[in-house]
Amino acid sequence: MTSLTHYINQIEAELIAYPLPMGPENLYDPLRYFFGLGGKRLRPVLTLMTAENFGAQGLNGLHAAMAVELFHNFSLIHDDIMDEAPVRRGKATVHSKWDTHIAILSGDVLFVKAYESLAKCEQKYLPVLLQLFNKTATEVCEGQQLDMDFESREHVTEVEYIEMIRLKTSVLLGCALQFGAIVAELDEKMQQSLYDFGQYIGIAFQIKDDLLDLYGESAQVGKQIGGDVLSDKKTLLSIKAKEFGCDMAELSRQSDDKLRINRSKELFETCGAKLYVEECMSRYYKRAIEALDVFPINQRKQYEDFASFLVERVS
Amino acid sequence: MTSLTHYINQIEAELIAYPLPMGPENLYDPLRYFFGLGGKRLRPVLTLMTAENFGAQGLNGLHAAMAVELFHNFSLIHDDIMDEAPVRRGKATVHSKWDTHIAILSGDVLFVKAYESLAKCEQKYLPVLLQLFNKTATEVCEGQQLDMDFESREHVTEVEYIEMIRLKTSVLLGCALQFGAIVAELDEKMQQSLYDFGQYIGIAFQIKDDLLDLYGESAQVGKQIGGDVLSDKKTLLSIKAKEFGCDMAELSRQSDDKLRINRSKELFETCGAKLYVEECMSRYYKRAIEALDVFPINQRKQYEDFASFLVERVS
Repeated sequence: MTSLTHYINQIEAELIAYPLPMGPENLYDPLRYFFGLGGKRLRPVLTLMTAENFGAQGLNGLHAAMAVELFHNFSLIHDDIMDEAPVRRGKATVHSKWDTHIAILSGDVLFVKAYESLAKCEQKYLPVLLQLFNKTATEVCEGQQLDMDFESREHVTEVEYIEMIRLKTSVLLGCALQFGAIVAELDEKMQQSLYDFGQYIGIAFQIKDDLLDLYGESAQVGKQIGGDVLSDKKTLLSIKAKEFGCDMAELSRQSDDKLRINRSKELFETCGAKLYVEECMSRYYKRAIEALDVFPINQRKQYEDFASFLVERVS
Repeated sequence: MTSLTHYINQIEAELIAYPLPMGPENLYDPLRYFFGLGGKRLRPVLTLMTAENFGAQGLNGLHAAMAVELFHNFSLIHDDIMDEAPVRRGKATVHSKWDTHIAILSGDVLFVKAYESLAKCEQKYLPVLLQLFNKTATEVCEGQQLDMDFESREHVTEVEYIEMIRLKTSVLLGCALQFGAIVAELDEKMQQSLYDFGQYIGIAFQIKDDLLDLYGESAQVGKQIGGDVLSDKKTLLSIKAKEFGCDMAELSRQSDDKLRINRSKELFETCGAKLYVEECMSRYYKRAIEALDVFPINQRKQYEDFASFLVERVS
């Protein structure tokens, strides 16, 4: 995705130069730290790419892209608390490096910064940008709540799981694209097509994430492989494995983490869950590509490349 | 403050009828619960009163007032986690009734709802409303962080303490008033005067809160008296008592809570801290009243009544 490098660099430059006050240190140091952890910057890239593709004026695209990225970072800081995750991108999470209270509050102030960035867009775009942002932020919270609710549930269906990841992950990709479309003044039909592309590719992206968690290479993924299996997390893989009659009790009985992970890899493959999940990912990938039909071929290219990158990535 | 009853009722009616989805239950039930806990609704009253006083059109005042109230509720839910407070308004706090993770997330979604309400105001007001709201929300987070930082510090000065409560409490009162002034299209000088009134009366209000925490009547205040003393919280009372040479070590040695509270009441009075704090409150009260000088007498009345109510209240 070399073609996206300049968008990524633009976002990195914004984050590095982001004007955070020096104090209170316990409020702003965690944000400086978190911005430095890096990340794929997928979401703001989608906004910038769309804004540029369709001729948005001025800095509207950049402000909207930053709003998306800052919101995403806020949600990661809070999600990490709720998921009790010690590590993010190979480094300590904010709540484990500082503490939970500091992570709550620095997350909160980062949420404000997201709105602050959005509010820099031209006034004429504000009502529609805000409406989409508020709807999306609400849905992301709902998705995170469903994810937490699933932990204590015995049984979760495929439909429920897909709806959860749609809310938790995909709507923000849709929003990122539509932000670009709004400031480029595309009509509603085109806006919706780009939103749908984002939403479907977001689902494929999350399913790929689930696959990589078990079948990826640790060094490439940047975290411990098999985390989902070890924490009994409900993913499409485990949901389908259970449905396909895979002996989940045998997996839980494995005394050793490594054995349990390897046995899961085998069993999920044998019972057909892995293949099913890969095919499911491909279906959402295809729906994403189809959503682009309203655009001429030359305008689809970058999105298609982006989509392929997401589902073919190894990390 | 009978004259304010209809504003309070308006806000209560909005909160009762607030369109929250039924699910996910763990996300929205805590908000329904929290809205039902009541509260003084001081902040939205200031917005509604100002909007009406100065002839704001349509529902702009109500939307802005709701934004302030929803934001305030969000900040209370998160603050209660950080302060590890078990009780709010005589009932269990969200994090103690549910859990911390649920309190974080339902707070987050409530924050979105605050912006959602603000975004309902007419487009022409949005940039300036958003700018003030973002600035205020940032400051409220900074104030909360300073408050947490003070806990682990040996020494806090009066100036630092006043700045902390200005950020944590007062700026939101200033914002509430200025919101009303913005949608009533007052000029900047008048907006600033109302903001200053809010800011100064907010400081007086918080100092009064500190006084009530020790010298109030439990039945009226609605919480355990002396909580600040028992948790060694830095308040203007304890800061000045220490400065005036009050024997704080003696207080810490008291084995019994009731003894410690009663002894604090005595000592803080004898050393002059109580009087100093009361006078300090009066000074901010006076500055608040003076900030209204730009308005004709008939337009000041309601604010003066409001200010008197805040500093003379017993709960």
